[in-house]
Amino acid sequence: MLINVAETVVADALRGMAAVHPELTVDVEGRVIVRRDAPVAGKVGLVSGGGSGHEPLHGGFVGAGMLDAACPGEVFTSPVPDQMVRAAAAVDSGAGVLFIVKNYTGDVLNFNMAAELAEDEGIQVASVLVNDDVAVVDSTYTAGRRGTGATLFVEKIAGAAAEEGAPLERVEALARRVNESSRSFGVALGACTTPAKGSPTFDLPDGELELGVGIHGEPGRERRAMMTSGEIADFAVDAVLGDLRPNGPVLALVNGAGATPLLELYGFAAEVHRVLRERDVPVARTLVGNYVTSLDMAGASVTLCQVDGEMLRLWDAPVQTPALRWGR
Amino acid sequence: MLINVAETVVADALRGMAAVHPELTVDVEGRVIVRRDAPVAGKVGLVSGGGSGHEPLHGGFVGAGMLDAACPGEVFTSPVPDQMVRAAAAVDSGAGVLFIVKNYTGDVLNFNMAAELAEDEGIQVASVLVNDDVAVVDSTYTAGRRGTGATLFVEKIAGAAAEEGAPLERVEALARRVNESSRSFGVALGACTTPAKGSPTFDLPDGELELGVGIHGEPGRERRAMMTSGEIADFAVDAVLGDLRPNGPVLALVNGAGATPLLELYGFAAEVHRVLRERDVPVARTLVGNYVTSLDMAGASVTLCQVDGEMLRLWDAPVQTPALRWGR
Repeated sequence: MLINVAETVVADALRGMAAVHPELTVDVEGRVIVRRDAPVAGKVGLVSGGGSGHEPLHGGFVGAGMLDAACPGEVFTSPVPDQMVRAAAAVDSGAGVLFIVKNYTGDVLNFNMAAELAEDEGIQVASVLVNDDVAVVDSTYTAGRRGTGATLFVEKIAGAAAEEGAPLERVEALARRVNESSRSFGVALGACTTPAKGSPTFDLPDGELELGVGIHGEPGRERRAMMTSGEIADFAVDAVLGDLRPNGPVLALVNGAGATPLLELYGFAAEVHRVLRERDVPVARTLVGNYVTSLDMAGASVTLCQVDGEMLRLWDAPVQTPALRWGR
Repeated sequence: MLINVAETVVADALRGMAAVHPELTVDVEGRVIVRRDAPVAGKVGLVSGGGSGHEPLHGGFVGAGMLDAACPGEVFTSPVPDQMVRAAAAVDSGAGVLFIVKNYTGDVLNFNMAAELAEDEGIQVASVLVNDDVAVVDSTYTAGRRGTGATLFVEKIAGAAAEEGAPLERVEALARRVNESSRSFGVALGACTTPAKGSPTFDLPDGELELGVGIHGEPGRERRAMMTSGEIADFAVDAVLGDLRPNGPVLALVNGAGATPLLELYGFAAEVHRVLRERDVPVARTLVGNYVTSLDMAGASVTLCQVDGEMLRLWDAPVQTPALRWGR
């Protein structure tokens, strides 16, 4: 691993973000990444966070048109309420703050506690839970469905609405609508290694894959002998469509787990598009790349979000973050 | 690997690019990726290409403000002259075409032949060789220094000049200047696996690293027991500065080889900045991410480019490609 020691991995990365991104304010000690111009007058503040190891999620999505702040925890470990309260205080302009929380037990508990603490400080807080992963109900780290790729859609679309000046109630409702309109399914072709452990966190023999893996390597639905890209696309898209049943166009995220080459991801994207065509699901936009990762896991996930005209317009709206940038 | 069969990996990826990027024209059969609005009237056309497996290089850099076309070869194999001639013909508006060629024997031969063929068709062609890798002189695939990360700087800065309407002679001179002002050094912490071979292309035991590795896994300067991120930054930056000796600000690319998590890359970027500060080299801009990859190789490289005001202005100029986007 390209690290100094396991204990400083998150702090080292934050020092790097501070050095490289002058448009962000990075509190290395306090573990909060904030857009430099926060709080933006009259604007609802969007705060997210979670365990590290999923980069660019969430810190790479801080900036105009998306998150106002992110709180990174230790690798695969929830951040603590103090970080979230600090983030909320840094971004609140008086218009309130939305917490975007992936559904893992630790994150949910800590964000709930942070919401209470922030309210005590006079900050109005709403929270939205992201739980898009259709692979399993109840898993290693959570009760209910896990939160994965839809987080990017929620952060981008709600972020665009907040940037336009939408009030907290509307930003919250929109974030909830994006989550409810999104489903994901992921596969692992190779395990990931956390800095603390230094060896693979789960055992996945060469020539096998895990269908429905979680973003921390949690078990999925089943393990099989290696499948082709096309077969994996069939399985993943059908798993998503089994639960989503869109009756209109979708946003598609073809997301790399970390170690799968972009060459392979684009080939997989071709297969995802083929399956969606065969199922008569029109695709409005597709994003291909490593956005919600699991350290050096090999594999990919598919997230679909059924969009209406407003959601699509907000998806296309300008965004200026380290990892997602378009428009102006 | 997330593939169908090894034989269709490049075609599958091109089908994916065609499906996902309506702003590009992708000739899957002919293996050329072209910006949709090419040829742009009065504009010099920029064409690059090389073996696949380094994505997003080069196809991900096609678009306004960067490349007009890219020709992907098979994995780690030069594209053929026919592809390059097709690309040149597709982007030439009469203002001429610049070939940007990484210094590998096969690429150099094929781009030279393509330049002759294109000239026969009445297209004015200039070529610039990128040879920034200070690790070794002469290597597995080439005579002289290898071309690696500086390719991104050449394509971006020359691309911005061409977009502004600079004539071929000036775009060529600028591309040459960027290459001459750039040096790179890479390290591998784990080998990569090509689809055709299906097993690691070189042998790198756990707990060792290759200092000065090439982007196809070619041997570098030496193999050592694992070093810390800080020690690797010292070694890599000093190797670059031993040859570059900048007397002004630099652009820095902290590039991932493919399988190294962004979390680790940002930590490495912090160390690269520390070393540059200690060596009194000011950093104007830093780009961190997987831009010139080697399939699923673990590791990273550092590229520095000494910039003057014009080069920095052109670096900051708008770019709209799949992998690099800013401004408008």
